[in-house]
Amino acid sequence: MPKIVELLTDTFGKNAVLPRAQAGTRVASNWRQNENLDCLALLLPETTDEVSKMLQICHEHNQPVVPHGGLTGVVGGTVTRPDEIALSLERMNQVEEINVQNKTVTVQAGVVLQHLQQVLAENGLLFPLDLGAKGSCMIGGNISSNAGGLQALRYGVMRNLVLGLEVVLADGTVLSSMNKMVKNNAGYDLKHLFIGSEGTLGVVTRAVLKVEDLPVSRSTAFVGLNSFEKATQFLQYSMKHLKNELSSFELLWQDYYSLMTSPPSPFSPVLPQTYPFYVLMETRGQDAGDGAVFETFLENALTSGLIDDASIAQTQQELDWFWGIRENVELIFSVHQPVFLFDVSLAISDMEAYIEKIKTDLQNIWADLHFYAFGHMGDGNLHLFVSCGHADHSTRHQVEDIVYQPLRQIGGSITGEHGIGLEKKAWLHLSRTAEEIQLMQTLKKALDPKGILNPGKIFLLTSL
Amino acid sequence: MPKIVELLTDTFGKNAVLPRAQAGTRVASNWRQNENLDCLALLLPETTDEVSKMLQICHEHNQPVVPHGGLTGVVGGTVTRPDEIALSLERMNQVEEINVQNKTVTVQAGVVLQHLQQVLAENGLLFPLDLGAKGSCMIGGNISSNAGGLQALRYGVMRNLVLGLEVVLADGTVLSSMNKMVKNNAGYDLKHLFIGSEGTLGVVTRAVLKVEDLPVSRSTAFVGLNSFEKATQFLQYSMKHLKNELSSFELLWQDYYSLMTSPPSPFSPVLPQTYPFYVLMETRGQDAGDGAVFETFLENALTSGLIDDASIAQTQQELDWFWGIRENVELIFSVHQPVFLFDVSLAISDMEAYIEKIKTDLQNIWADLHFYAFGHMGDGNLHLFVSCGHADHSTRHQVEDIVYQPLRQIGGSITGEHGIGLEKKAWLHLSRTAEEIQLMQTLKKALDPKGILNPGKIFLLTSL
Repeated sequence: MPKIVELLTDTFGKNAVLPRAQAGTRVASNWRQNENLDCLALLLPETTDEVSKMLQICHEHNQPVVPHGGLTGVVGGTVTRPDEIALSLERMNQVEEINVQNKTVTVQAGVVLQHLQQVLAENGLLFPLDLGAKGSCMIGGNISSNAGGLQALRYGVMRNLVLGLEVVLADGTVLSSMNKMVKNNAGYDLKHLFIGSEGTLGVVTRAVLKVEDLPVSRSTAFVGLNSFEKATQFLQYSMKHLKNELSSFELLWQDYYSLMTSPPSPFSPVLPQTYPFYVLMETRGQDAGDGAVFETFLENALTSGLIDDASIAQTQQELDWFWGIRENVELIFSVHQPVFLFDVSLAISDMEAYIEKIKTDLQNIWADLHFYAFGHMGDGNLHLFVSCGHADHSTRHQVEDIVYQPLRQIGGSITGEHGIGLEKKAWLHLSRTAEEIQLMQTLKKALDPKGILNPGKIFLLTSL
Repeated sequence: MPKIVELLTDTFGKNAVLPRAQAGTRVASNWRQNENLDCLALLLPETTDEVSKMLQICHEHNQPVVPHGGLTGVVGGTVTRPDEIALSLERMNQVEEINVQNKTVTVQAGVVLQHLQQVLAENGLLFPLDLGAKGSCMIGGNISSNAGGLQALRYGVMRNLVLGLEVVLADGTVLSSMNKMVKNNAGYDLKHLFIGSEGTLGVVTRAVLKVEDLPVSRSTAFVGLNSFEKATQFLQYSMKHLKNELSSFELLWQDYYSLMTSPPSPFSPVLPQTYPFYVLMETRGQDAGDGAVFETFLENALTSGLIDDASIAQTQQELDWFWGIRENVELIFSVHQPVFLFDVSLAISDMEAYIEKIKTDLQNIWADLHFYAFGHMGDGNLHLFVSCGHADHSTRHQVEDIVYQPLRQIGGSITGEHGIGLEKKAWLHLSRTAEEIQLMQTLKKALDPKGILNPGKIFLLTSL
């Protein structure tokens, strides 16, 4: 057993330190159940104090540490090299305090998102972050990756939902910044350093989150549209007139909608497969009359020609059907292999031309290409699935080049919500200037001079 | 003329570099028109490139620089020592681009807030930051101080309204991070470092801001309440049922309301002066029927006993009257001298007891004390005015001690929106842990190793 693992085991016990063989019985990622964890050891602390002491020892021994949450990330942000130690927050899974009056909740980093949603719902509260991976992803990972999801349009991304943060720095220093206030201008707002920095600047251990009143109404509709321009106008109109109750506005290109509503998909079409664009929209509200208001709103939009077709979910079964069409992305992987997944961000006014261009460019090279686009239109964030029959490094690079290069010119981003991790670091320079990357590295060096926290992630050059 | 001023004059011309005597004809602060600027020179760049070159020269010569905007801050964040150079962004005052479809505006740092509001209104858009100082304060200052104001409840503070930022670092490096997207997870989100750091980490030169549709309806009411508990319940009720259109919820304690509605105040009372608490509330919406909905909402609240009295502004004149009572704080300074101003942040559930405690503690020392409290209840942010007849250093310290010390225990902040500047740096440790202050100083050192940017602000110890 390596010396550092021995030392950690002696200090924290066998329960908290799984050596390589034992760690290797677990999966490396929620998405690749056949790949096992390969690391020097897996640490399972139960308290912030333990996290602090573990990092102190690793720091002293220049031992790289990779923070782990629910392992639902898709960019390789939690991948370990064989000589790295993984540190999972899964045992720090307590919802510590729910404050109904001040609308805050205090949680440990290992709380699973769906569990938090359920506990809050029992108290009449809503934690509005909502992701496909909610059954596995953990709050610490949501914070470290600045998760977005299905309701960011109304409630913001994870960054907007965090009031306070406790973080353990590379050398074991506990930075307790558990602010519960909406407004606090006492010095620098340090939490933003750690939100979205993918575990490279500190390990999130606890957080204070903002919560909302649990909505009593939920209105959901599929809308068919004959042009992208109409989708844009309808979004503007919805944001203006739905009294800020619009929580989701998901755009589906026809190819995606057709795939998701044809066998072998379990879902039949809600609307005919003939529209070039579909919107899945939802409002959440506090009044019994909200459903009727929503119905009138859609009727008016239909009558005035703003939209071309619409169907409102009337039962829980229909709700599951509607959302299934949007969310059942696993289907793509069962129909096509291999598949490349993208997560681009761009101005709504650039979306249609961008999708047309890259689809054409890809088809010019791979005639039998499968290309699916959909996403959080209201947030300017689209997901793309590309399958061209190959997955070798050179093909992957060629596809990425076609998808990412046009973003530079239109000021888009290579990632709206998934982050950089390992998989996108070669392209970071397309979305960030040399000065920005330089400053990021200055911060990394200032906070983690030995470079032990999640090394090799985000930055192409790790020679700090 | 000092060598550095000569060098700057030779490089940028007399128009852009005002030497001490000329700079000294200008006021040092918008609030103290009788105090003149005392500094080595005042720089007036017209472009980011000029700001960059000016800072490059100052950096090379270890010359301290104090960034200036509209000079409306109240904590001494822009005070210059005689050997420091002031750098005003006032000539960089262009609104560069308004994008109606993507709801963004690109501005230079010297744009005055009210001017921006007006230009946007002409385009059917709203920039929702709203402050008493809007006629003078500049966007760069709003960003550097993370301004809050009267509509943060609904639209957030300045931090929530900034999408992209251009900043010049201490050594003259231009950090262009002019992101226009709502979601961008490509590496660290650097803008948050500079928002609210009071010009100590960089000089803001340009920004991309989020804008909203200009509301068509505005409903404003004064409400009388017989207890703090009722105010709390009414706030919760309003946030739940006003369809997220509630933009202001300002709480006034009786003493403040009475002062502002009695001679020599120009304003008569809207409601009798007999209620212990008053709320000035406002909703903004997009529909013609909003006013009627608001009226019904208030009628129901009155009928059910949730509130004790209410009056809705029916004309522009009444609107000015209502808001005048809340905003005409200058009256306090004309009636009482000297006056200490505070800006504390705390949980709503702690407010009543906190105000009672410090008022009693102050009165126990100064029997003839004048004490006024009001603020942004919905944001958990209160402003206090204390006049005890003296303004010497020791009295000031004693008053501050009474106001600030209780905040530590209840997890409050010594500043919700005004910032630290010079005036509160002795108390920063009450709202931030030693580890937080240490990390702030680590960041300061990493970004400005020579300590030339706004030295002596925020931190008690400047020996970096």
